[in-house]
Amino acid sequence: MKKPAYKIAMLGAGNVAWHLAPALEEAGHEIICVYSRNLENAEALAQNLKTARATDFTDFTDFPADLYIIAVKDSVLPELLREAVFPAGSLVAHTSGTQPLSVFETNKNIQGAVFYPLQTFSKNTPVSFRNIPFCLETAHKNAMVLLQKTAESLSEKVYQVNSEDRKILHLAAVFACNFTNHLFGISAEILQQNQLHFEMLQPLVEQTVQKAFAQNPFSVQTGPAIRHDENTIQTQLQFLQNNPGYQQIYELLTRSIQQKS
Amino acid sequence: MKKPAYKIAMLGAGNVAWHLAPALEEAGHEIICVYSRNLENAEALAQNLKTARATDFTDFTDFPADLYIIAVKDSVLPELLREAVFPAGSLVAHTSGTQPLSVFETNKNIQGAVFYPLQTFSKNTPVSFRNIPFCLETAHKNAMVLLQKTAESLSEKVYQVNSEDRKILHLAAVFACNFTNHLFGISAEILQQNQLHFEMLQPLVEQTVQKAFAQNPFSVQTGPAIRHDENTIQTQLQFLQNNPGYQQIYELLTRSIQQKS
Repeated sequence: MKKPAYKIAMLGAGNVAWHLAPALEEAGHEIICVYSRNLENAEALAQNLKTARATDFTDFTDFPADLYIIAVKDSVLPELLREAVFPAGSLVAHTSGTQPLSVFETNKNIQGAVFYPLQTFSKNTPVSFRNIPFCLETAHKNAMVLLQKTAESLSEKVYQVNSEDRKILHLAAVFACNFTNHLFGISAEILQQNQLHFEMLQPLVEQTVQKAFAQNPFSVQTGPAIRHDENTIQTQLQFLQNNPGYQQIYELLTRSIQQKS
Repeated sequence: MKKPAYKIAMLGAGNVAWHLAPALEEAGHEIICVYSRNLENAEALAQNLKTARATDFTDFTDFPADLYIIAVKDSVLPELLREAVFPAGSLVAHTSGTQPLSVFETNKNIQGAVFYPLQTFSKNTPVSFRNIPFCLETAHKNAMVLLQKTAESLSEKVYQVNSEDRKILHLAAVFACNFTNHLFGISAEILQQNQLHFEMLQPLVEQTVQKAFAQNPFSVQTGPAIRHDENTIQTQLQFLQNNPGYQQIYELLTRSIQQKS
C-alpha cells in the first residue's frame, strides 16, 4: 500500500507538536509550516523538520494544506480559533482529549475535526507512535477518510471516538494515570522517609500493570485488603498515623477493594 | 567468578517455588528435594527439575542442605515451622514480604533468615529474576554471605533489609501496586460500561509508570486536579453520580493531589 502523503500545517510547537510533526514527516507527509505565538519555538521545531517554515501569524490563506493540526494547550485553543483564518473548506483538527468537536462551531467555513493521540508527551522522552491509540472525530465523511489515512500512517491503533466517549476515556485516564501517579508519589515518599528506594518497587509495579491489562484488573487484585488481613491493615494504618490524609486514602481504597470482591 | 553452587531444599510448590526452584537450578544450584503438603504439587514441580525428589513429610534430617527455602503462604508458615525438623544449625529462609525474622524464634536449633523476592508470581507468567530485588535478612554473618551469593546468582539487585524496613516496603507496595490495581479496575469498568476498551489506555499507563520511576512522581503529576481545572472536575464527578463510592475516591484523591502541589 502506497503511503498517503498530505500537506499538513502544524499549529503549535509544544510537546505534542514536537513529536507529532517529525513523525508525520517520517511517514511521508509534508509539514508546510509550523505556527507558534512564540516565533522562537516555531523556528526550533521547523529546524528539526525538512520542509517546514515557521510563522507567528494566524492567517493561513497563503498556506493551503490538506490538514491543519492544532496542537496547543486547551486554554489557548478558543483564542486561536477566534484569530485564525483558514482557506475556505479547510480540514482543521485539534489534538485535545478534553475539547469537544463543537469547539469549532464558531468557525463556519472550515471542517472541524479531532486528531487525538492518547499519550502523554515530553520533549526529552522519545516516543514511538506505532502503538499509540489515535481517536478521530469529524462530522464530514471525506474528512474522516483523510484523518484515518493520516493516523494509520503513524499508528496501528486508530479509533473513531465521539466527543461523549472521549470524555469517558478522559475520566478513565484520570483514574488509571493521574490518580495512580499520585499513589506512586505517596509510595515513593513513604520509602524515602525511611531511606528506602522507590526503584525497588519498579519490577513489581510493571508486573502489576502487565497483569491488569492481560486480565480484568479486579480479578487479579492482591494485597491485605482483598485477603481481609485485618492484622496487616491495622498495622499499616497505625504506621500512617502522622498523616491523616494518607490514612484516609488507605481506608477508603481498602474498603472499596473489599466491596468489589 | 565461579558460581556458588549450593544444595537447596525447597519447601513449598506454589507460585514462588514454581519459578524460584528452576531459576536456582539454572544458576547452578542443586535442588535436593521439593516439599509440599500436597504430594502431587511437589511431584509436579520436582518433575520440572533435574535433581529434585518430592516429599510430603517435614522431617528433613535425611536431607542435609546448605539452605532450606520456605516458599509457602503466610498463613501456613507458622504451622510448617512448628512441624518441620531440620538438621541442627541449618540455614532456613522464608520468602515472605510480611513475616518478620522473629517468626523463627520458636525453632531454636536453626539459623532463621529471609530470602524475599520483591515480585508477584503466577504459574503461567514467565519471570526473569535478573531485575527482581532480593531482600535478605538474618542475624548470622556467615548465613548472610551464603544468602547473598545465592541471591546474586539470580539477580543484580540484592539488598539487606531488616524486618522493620520490609514492613515499610510492603506498605509502599500496597499503595503503588494493590491500590493502583484497584484504580485500574475502576477505570476498566467505566470504559466497559460505555463499550470502550481498557487496552486503549495501556500506552498511557506504561508511560505514566516510566515517568514516575524516572523522576519524583509528585513532580510529574498531570490531570485536572493539579491544574485546578474545576470545570472538568465537576463534570467528571457528575458523571460518577450513580456510584458514590467512586465519587468519594475521586474527591479524596483530587484533594490530596491539590494539597501536595
